[in-house]
Amino acid sequence: MEFRIRAATREDCRDIFRMIRELAVYEKMLDKVKISHEVLERDGFSENPFFHCLVAEVPQQYRTMEGYTLVGYALYSYTYSTWKGRSVYMEDLYVMPEFRGQYTCGCSCEIIAKEQQCVRLNFSVLDWNKPSMDFYLAKGAQNLTTTEGWHCLRFEGEALDKLAEQALNKTGHLSHQH
Amino acid sequence: MEFRIRAATREDCRDIFRMIRELAVYEKMLDKVKISHEVLERDGFSENPFFHCLVAEVPQQYRTMEGYTLVGYALYSYTYSTWKGRSVYMEDLYVMPEFRGQYTCGCSCEIIAKEQQCVRLNFSVLDWNKPSMDFYLAKGAQNLTTTEGWHCLRFEGEALDKLAEQALNKTGHLSHQH
Repeated sequence: MEFRIRAATREDCRDIFRMIRELAVYEKMLDKVKISHEVLERDGFSENPFFHCLVAEVPQQYRTMEGYTLVGYALYSYTYSTWKGRSVYMEDLYVMPEFRGQYTCGCSCEIIAKEQQCVRLNFSVLDWNKPSMDFYLAKGAQNLTTTEGWHCLRFEGEALDKLAEQALNKTGHLSHQH
Repeated sequence: MEFRIRAATREDCRDIFRMIRELAVYEKMLDKVKISHEVLERDGFSENPFFHCLVAEVPQQYRTMEGYTLVGYALYSYTYSTWKGRSVYMEDLYVMPEFRGQYTCGCSCEIIAKEQQCVRLNFSVLDWNKPSMDFYLAKGAQNLTTTEGWHCLRFEGEALDKLAEQALNKTGHLSHQH
């Protein structure tokens, strides 16, 4: 089937948000989605975007029963390795069930990585999601948790608030531009 | 001791690169550092930077024996949670040994996170690096690998080349802007 991968625009945010919710339903975690399409528009399509996004689009004649022509997305950000340089972090990759099997992998995040001279494409997979894990490993991905022992850590909510408060008390001031 | 945390400038790249190497020596992985201070200047201080960086600076009277006044750095990027929104990924945090204990945590990445209305501060820790792991967990960080099963995956080198090549063959074309 013919399809096109292109950079998302502000106008795609309703569709992207729809697919974010579809992915969350699949993961049985819809109640965890706290954003909205307006938030996506603000955070991804203003001067200093917090993310980039690709969408997969099919021609009108292949639209879904509901009339959708956007059938997949890959949301990513640039990160940086202090040893190797430019990297891409892929946060989400989703293709609507009826369109799966059309894509090799990564919804072309890997093409972005190469074009932007990035040396790494990083992402996270749940260890119980065996189909995904097997898929990526078969494509040549390394599992850095099992091979090198890297663990994913996170501060959020109250722990992040407390940390920031302590840091501000200690440093007294912070001068910076973004 | 008095010190200042500020956003790094292009002129700090030699010092940041020096500290990246110091950290790699500590990790016994100096041969893995493939970048240079010129690469840092290009990737971090041009129009669309691939990373952001904070530095810790002490007044002249506290400079090191070698004459350095930059004594720590935190290198980070913005990433994005499709459930919760804006996030910060902290790639490196380093403070020169003789200045440790001056900072609460995170070299103020957590302040950046709060100021930029980010809801998460993410980072990775090696499971055998028990002092660091214990330090962050005691501060309230969650270990998402042990609690939720998230594993870090990566394509790089030949695997990434091959993936991009396959994707290009399959999609035929890719239209996008950055």
